[in-house]
Amino acid sequence: MSSPYPPLVPTPRVLMGPGPSPVAPSVLGALAMPTIGHLDPQFLEVMDQTRDMLRQVLETKNALTFPMSGTGSSGMETVLVNLIEPGDRVLVGVNGVFGTRMAEVSKRAGAEVTVVAGEWGRALDAEAFTRAASGKKFQLLCAVHAETSTGVLQPLDPLREVADGLGALLLVDTVTSLGGVPVRADERRIDALYSGTQKCLSCPPGLSPVSLSEAAEKSLAKRERPVQSWYLDLSLIRNYWGADRAYHHTAPINMIYGLHEALRLVLEERLEPRFARHEKNTRALWGGLEAMGLELIVPKAERLVPLTTVRIPDGVDDAAVRRFLLDELSLEIGGGLGPMKGKAWRIGLMGHGSTRQNVTLCLSGLSAALAAQGRTSRVGDALAAVAAVYD
Amino acid sequence: MSSPYPPLVPTPRVLMGPGPSPVAPSVLGALAMPTIGHLDPQFLEVMDQTRDMLRQVLETKNALTFPMSGTGSSGMETVLVNLIEPGDRVLVGVNGVFGTRMAEVSKRAGAEVTVVAGEWGRALDAEAFTRAASGKKFQLLCAVHAETSTGVLQPLDPLREVADGLGALLLVDTVTSLGGVPVRADERRIDALYSGTQKCLSCPPGLSPVSLSEAAEKSLAKRERPVQSWYLDLSLIRNYWGADRAYHHTAPINMIYGLHEALRLVLEERLEPRFARHEKNTRALWGGLEAMGLELIVPKAERLVPLTTVRIPDGVDDAAVRRFLLDELSLEIGGGLGPMKGKAWRIGLMGHGSTRQNVTLCLSGLSAALAAQGRTSRVGDALAAVAAVYD
Repeated sequence: MSSPYPPLVPTPRVLMGPGPSPVAPSVLGALAMPTIGHLDPQFLEVMDQTRDMLRQVLETKNALTFPMSGTGSSGMETVLVNLIEPGDRVLVGVNGVFGTRMAEVSKRAGAEVTVVAGEWGRALDAEAFTRAASGKKFQLLCAVHAETSTGVLQPLDPLREVADGLGALLLVDTVTSLGGVPVRADERRIDALYSGTQKCLSCPPGLSPVSLSEAAEKSLAKRERPVQSWYLDLSLIRNYWGADRAYHHTAPINMIYGLHEALRLVLEERLEPRFARHEKNTRALWGGLEAMGLELIVPKAERLVPLTTVRIPDGVDDAAVRRFLLDELSLEIGGGLGPMKGKAWRIGLMGHGSTRQNVTLCLSGLSAALAAQGRTSRVGDALAAVAAVYD
Repeated sequence: MSSPYPPLVPTPRVLMGPGPSPVAPSVLGALAMPTIGHLDPQFLEVMDQTRDMLRQVLETKNALTFPMSGTGSSGMETVLVNLIEPGDRVLVGVNGVFGTRMAEVSKRAGAEVTVVAGEWGRALDAEAFTRAASGKKFQLLCAVHAETSTGVLQPLDPLREVADGLGALLLVDTVTSLGGVPVRADERRIDALYSGTQKCLSCPPGLSPVSLSEAAEKSLAKRERPVQSWYLDLSLIRNYWGADRAYHHTAPINMIYGLHEALRLVLEERLEPRFARHEKNTRALWGGLEAMGLELIVPKAERLVPLTTVRIPDGVDDAAVRRFLLDELSLEIGGGLGPMKGKAWRIGLMGHGSTRQNVTLCLSGLSAALAAQGRTSRVGDALAAVAAVYD
């Protein structure tokens, strides 16, 4: 009747997909620290330190900054349901999975959603937002800073200008940018953002940092009805993470330990050197892939450093390549989503995983996987292109 | 500018509050296992095994059974928002914090809520539900099996009968019962339940097991509008945890490792011996507390084994006692919530923490803490009462 399985012994992987990314040993160690009470004075200090470090990584002074007790999508839902009341107008840029999801979540929150549709694999043009708004006022302008489904980095400054013109708050998905490319929440006047822990912060999935500007907090204060979600109601969670410590839910203690350590590592490295490391390793990857004759989907100026999308050459078996990498090298890369399914690979160089070693392994592995399908690839050229970046 | 804090070194605690409970070393070890991709074949097997073991612990065959990616309160919100459509009538038993919360979450989901109010510290009478229903039909009858705020165990069989009469699904909070006292979801014909990991499963907080009966699944299928929450929409999450593996969110990999190991330990011990262990240790605690002259708030027949509420004697400084225990013995017990604030202690003997050692430490510690306030307590009698249980 009672049949437990044997204990888990997962085979370690080199994680070069769209996330989770490789986790530093000290972060795994932090996860295994002794669980203590969520109202223990020791833990309250952990919460305060975590918020403080999160603000440093976000480059913000926003009071309302903390990790939500759920994965990245819970952060998306949090900022949307807190800032939307039924009937509010919301303008959403959609050029990938996560913009699509923001539109869906906004609709479920009762918003009147206007979609600014763009090509998958390209950034959105600010003028397209202005056109779609057609002179109306909006409560929110939503965009994805780093589209994990396509590998596009969305320029935010032009959208901030558009939002100002529409009287809208600027709400941004920073799931795959935070910790890998500059987010600079205050400088860019982002009003609301959410992120994930399992991308460039290199912490396991399970938490979603959120941050709201003063203007967004004012919008919260003016709500006429309660937020539809009790679990994600920021007016309650603010009092739990704040000086009141008013009980709301039990924080996921060990996950917070992990995030604390992950943020510590980011700040020890310092932001600018970390961004430079990400950029250098990804430039090497791009050079290597192109030297192998593979095509990158996103134009260079719009590429997202932590995540690269590569067009799968005609006739190459997507699943077989990924299986080869996983089985032979214990190396994970991602497949495409939505219209890119079967047509693109997604290669992540995020956080702890952004290393020359991983660039080298991935290029050599892809070459071997293609060879297994009878394709030649110029792996020597690829490695020479990589070397050139580090010389 | 960049100022990381030093690495965390939490002082271990003996956790005898209302949760989190002590975590077994092998569960902490599982949390620190290498993070792998959420679509990795290895991880898909972990998901399947976790669901299977969860069903065994719940004693159910329910297809729709998995841990939600949030804490216990996210599970509460999940079952409510999925089973409620605006205007639905919901009958909620309220005799503590968690019944109160179910009523609040149901209102936010648009339900017409009828509260069956009861005394804090007492179980609810089935007839009170029938009276409150006053002949109307209801979509849901909601009750808290194990009220973590008061230490009451609610008999469910009579409520099942009432629900049948009202045409209602029976929805139950099993946060503090699962793994410590029998839940027996199928035998009791519970239609929807949610739980937490940080109580009698002795896993850190961060996940919320949920399970829905076939009848509840049918109710889902008949919905006229989408669930208000995208993150908690079971029709989507079912496809992610099911054979389709349709991407919804990124499961919190390492937390799932932890739950897998925690469930394994429950099944290795086997359910009936585990329930018997909880009962024996708690009987020793009750005997000891009463021998010390302390009063237990809940009548014996309605007491919840994993969590005991003790009346704080007049004139005793609640905060000073709990601080003494924490500072001198690194022992955590809980304070009261709501009307019990400052009037009750909550002492948990849950999962890995239900041991004779902890019973002994707690009674001796309480005696010392009371002595520090100039109170005498018959600690010798208490320890003799404890010994009698184990003889």
